[in-house]
Amino acid sequence: MANLQKPSPMPFSKYKSFYDRIQLDMRDRTWPDQRLTKAPRWLSTDLRDGNQALIDPMTPERKRRMFDLLVKLGFKEIEVGFPAASQPDFDFVRQIIEEDAIPDDVRISVLTQAREDLIERTVESLRGAQKPTVHLYNATAPVFRKVVFGFEGDGFDQTRDIALRGTQAVMKHAESMLGDAEFGYQYSPEIFVDTEPEFAADIVGSVLDMWQPAAGRETVVNLPATVERGTPNAYADQIEWFIRQMPYREDVAVSLHPHNDRGTGVAAAELGLMAGADRVEGCLFGNGERTGNLDLVTVAMNLYSQGVDPELDFSDIDEVIHTVEDCNQIGVHERHPYGGDLVFTSFSGSHQDAINKAFADREIKAHQAGVPVDRMEWDMPYLPVDPKDLGRSYEAVIRVNSQSGKGGVTYLIKSEHGLDMPRRMQVEFSKVVQARTETGGEVNAKEIWRIFADEYLPAEEDETGWGRFELLSLRTESVHAEDEDAGRLSERIEAFLRVDGQERVYEGRGNGPVDALVTILNDHFDVDIRLQDYSEHAVGTGADTKAAAYVELAVGDRVLWGAGLHPNITKATLKAIISAVNRAAR
Amino acid sequence: MANLQKPSPMPFSKYKSFYDRIQLDMRDRTWPDQRLTKAPRWLSTDLRDGNQALIDPMTPERKRRMFDLLVKLGFKEIEVGFPAASQPDFDFVRQIIEEDAIPDDVRISVLTQAREDLIERTVESLRGAQKPTVHLYNATAPVFRKVVFGFEGDGFDQTRDIALRGTQAVMKHAESMLGDAEFGYQYSPEIFVDTEPEFAADIVGSVLDMWQPAAGRETVVNLPATVERGTPNAYADQIEWFIRQMPYREDVAVSLHPHNDRGTGVAAAELGLMAGADRVEGCLFGNGERTGNLDLVTVAMNLYSQGVDPELDFSDIDEVIHTVEDCNQIGVHERHPYGGDLVFTSFSGSHQDAINKAFADREIKAHQAGVPVDRMEWDMPYLPVDPKDLGRSYEAVIRVNSQSGKGGVTYLIKSEHGLDMPRRMQVEFSKVVQARTETGGEVNAKEIWRIFADEYLPAEEDETGWGRFELLSLRTESVHAEDEDAGRLSERIEAFLRVDGQERVYEGRGNGPVDALVTILNDHFDVDIRLQDYSEHAVGTGADTKAAAYVELAVGDRVLWGAGLHPNITKATLKAIISAVNRAAR
Repeated sequence: MANLQKPSPMPFSKYKSFYDRIQLDMRDRTWPDQRLTKAPRWLSTDLRDGNQALIDPMTPERKRRMFDLLVKLGFKEIEVGFPAASQPDFDFVRQIIEEDAIPDDVRISVLTQAREDLIERTVESLRGAQKPTVHLYNATAPVFRKVVFGFEGDGFDQTRDIALRGTQAVMKHAESMLGDAEFGYQYSPEIFVDTEPEFAADIVGSVLDMWQPAAGRETVVNLPATVERGTPNAYADQIEWFIRQMPYREDVAVSLHPHNDRGTGVAAAELGLMAGADRVEGCLFGNGERTGNLDLVTVAMNLYSQGVDPELDFSDIDEVIHTVEDCNQIGVHERHPYGGDLVFTSFSGSHQDAINKAFADREIKAHQAGVPVDRMEWDMPYLPVDPKDLGRSYEAVIRVNSQSGKGGVTYLIKSEHGLDMPRRMQVEFSKVVQARTETGGEVNAKEIWRIFADEYLPAEEDETGWGRFELLSLRTESVHAEDEDAGRLSERIEAFLRVDGQERVYEGRGNGPVDALVTILNDHFDVDIRLQDYSEHAVGTGADTKAAAYVELAVGDRVLWGAGLHPNITKATLKAIISAVNRAAR
Repeated sequence: MANLQKPSPMPFSKYKSFYDRIQLDMRDRTWPDQRLTKAPRWLSTDLRDGNQALIDPMTPERKRRMFDLLVKLGFKEIEVGFPAASQPDFDFVRQIIEEDAIPDDVRISVLTQAREDLIERTVESLRGAQKPTVHLYNATAPVFRKVVFGFEGDGFDQTRDIALRGTQAVMKHAESMLGDAEFGYQYSPEIFVDTEPEFAADIVGSVLDMWQPAAGRETVVNLPATVERGTPNAYADQIEWFIRQMPYREDVAVSLHPHNDRGTGVAAAELGLMAGADRVEGCLFGNGERTGNLDLVTVAMNLYSQGVDPELDFSDIDEVIHTVEDCNQIGVHERHPYGGDLVFTSFSGSHQDAINKAFADREIKAHQAGVPVDRMEWDMPYLPVDPKDLGRSYEAVIRVNSQSGKGGVTYLIKSEHGLDMPRRMQVEFSKVVQARTETGGEVNAKEIWRIFADEYLPAEEDETGWGRFELLSLRTESVHAEDEDAGRLSERIEAFLRVDGQERVYEGRGNGPVDALVTILNDHFDVDIRLQDYSEHAVGTGADTKAAAYVELAVGDRVLWGAGLHPNITKATLKAIISAVNRAAR
């Protein structure tokens, strides 16, 4: 194995490994054998962690739109702001409480730092809420203790003290101001992933001892990867280790709060849930500071794709995207899982071909099983979930560019126009499309139809059409003759043709109208044509039904296809012959 | 623990778990204990898998720009196209070979399906290349064998046969056309993750037996997650299991080809490398069909952030983004790890505060250690890597919106204007900024300076300035008197003031010029001021050095700060007093 790579000039040696900071012996970990079989509790922090990271933070109107969307999607835990740090946040919390906008089964929470004046104002903002949670955090990681706060020594005592005094203040003010409500408490040791594991366990244990979790007393311990530091398995190890140490396990929800600095936020959440966590915090489509918070849409839809109820409703993903983009003023990327414009599309020819065949097979199987096709088990190449489940159509599934093959073209012609081209014709037409698109750009269904019409239906479209031959009208007569020769040529047609601009009626015979027209063309014009293959099928239903005919003609030493569309099946076929002859003369 | 969530109306039950399809007993897995300590071999498929997924596939010029970029970044393995499926791809391969654009240590590869006519044309495209690899794939997953190809029975034999005949054809044509080159072979069982593991091992073993890997005979087995199906640990299990079965281990590079349908492509690559793979395939910033291929930038920079040489050079990330966006005509999202516009920024007040302090601490420590600050070990809150290493400045690190606190404002005023505001003044000014930005929007450094100047330097800016008091000029005199009283009031000033539009000279005494001016103001005007605190420092160096002075004044029952800037340290301080008095009168 030859590795040709060379050292980079970048100053990588100024960085330390995550494992140099955090050491855990987790050889007895159990999470890699766990499976995700139920949805976690979800907390949306779109209005807090998400909002504070926006270039243009939400106006009260946009906040309200986001809140209502979250409720509609099924979120039961929503962090609605940081009221002591921001007057608009305070006002918003008051607004949704006073306007009674919070459903009975939805718990709101607000973030606060661990200072008594801030805590008091924070609790104040929650007056009148039915299920309010105060979320207190303090920084426990070494860089904060040593550099940001400049504590003497290891700073453990000072840091624990801040957490305990904060917890006490929350209890005092919540009991006095929220006594009638089902108030809850959430504590976050910040940045958990950078904190010495033993100290994180110590401080959380102390906080819980003060708070006294119990059944019916809402308690959450949140373990933030405020900045993503290590591979996601390292986070899972930290979570499993932590849970083993944590007291009051039965009465405390362990929550994950991943960010996405290393692009592995979703994985960290999934492995963290396997490691025993109960709940995840994040934002729709991963909004949030820097690379964003965990994307809750992806985690939920990942569960969905495995047959697990996400307990969130993303059946109208475009509405979600629309609201999120409007509230955040940041777009959802074209390739963002489940939501991006391009994520259910296929440009590759071989992918298109496979999807095409699998869709056809799915229809047949549904028909055989007598069940609606939408209910059939989903087992599709290149489509991890059914776009229809998210409110998307199949229209965009297959898109054609110069790299696409016959599959995409065939799919679009069939899905948009009902034409079921024979296989060899698919190959021919996809080359036509490819030749016309190699200069670049995507070709949409309309464009492909334009190419199809221009190529195969040349003399049909009056002014714009082209072609040496045009079939203007037709009379057919079946002759019941006795003699052997007439028996073989029992069909007589009178074809009114325009050829090279001259209009004339030609008469011909054959064993059918196709044969008769071929004879006319061979007898009267300098062409040498033989019919190789043809097929025909109905397009549409009822009075609008047309016939689509396809013929493969050998014209001299070339073989080409023609197509014809007409309510009359005979005329459709004859037009297909004219189509092929015209293409040969083009 | 109360879980308030309700079932979703979505038809989740039509999906099966990945584990229902692929069962492996990997309780003896070893990958979770592995660590990533060296860069893998990288293969860029930007010009193949990436290009074929573009709405607007690259023109020859854009292909060439991408190729040259990849070479410059240090990629030594580049998949350059699918020549038998696309004439532009064929032409491009010919072009880079004939124009001698491929460095001696760069291996190019091209993809082909397993049909002899396609293979022949594929090999044809590589004539003259020094290190060409033919990459052959065939579909091995059940949905392809059963639905797409419609094989009888399990389709194992037919599928293996396609792979073997394809391999044989590659060998035949490569030996005849590429005999002088160091030609290599890559085989991909497609879609590996959906393929029965035993069958994947079987077919790869058969292909390798035919190809006969050996030292110096470039051989790659690529294991694509063409569609991401399960959690990334499941992929790692599949990789570790597969490697245990694979013959010729020493002479075969095992390659990963993750996609990102579940948003866990990066994690899959990392855990897959821990599971023993040698090489990863992907695209810059994760371009590719649907949600894209693995993002190689993120995997490389993740290694970098752990002190591992990525063996790729991303020290000018903006150039990479510029070229990628231009070639792909798809943007890099604002929150895309390492590359997005917002990923090194902080809007949150507490984040800004911490970054601020850590930057200051870093400078002090570098100074103490006598090393350049850029070489110091990186241990920064909220910044996983040093933006400078990627060619980014610190300018955008801290950005201020209505959610930001004093940290951001302080940082910007200091980094852009050299002003080091005292802590209580930081608090005051950040409230000023917050009040002016709660209507929304980000505030840039220029805007903050405008707010600062308008607030603290009111009477300085002629026409646009405001303020009751303006110091026009000044004479000072130190009095050396014998008597006790004069001793305490040894400084005499003549201040030429414009007050309420009237210009006049006022005389005052004090124990210094500050005291003297305070006396003038208290004696002649209806103000009641006491000096609480002040500080001063130099801004700039050499002839341009100015003094920045900050004073905290009690004015009546209010306490406010003033600021003054002047080359003369005395005048700067007196202007700061005027600033505070004017603010009080505002």
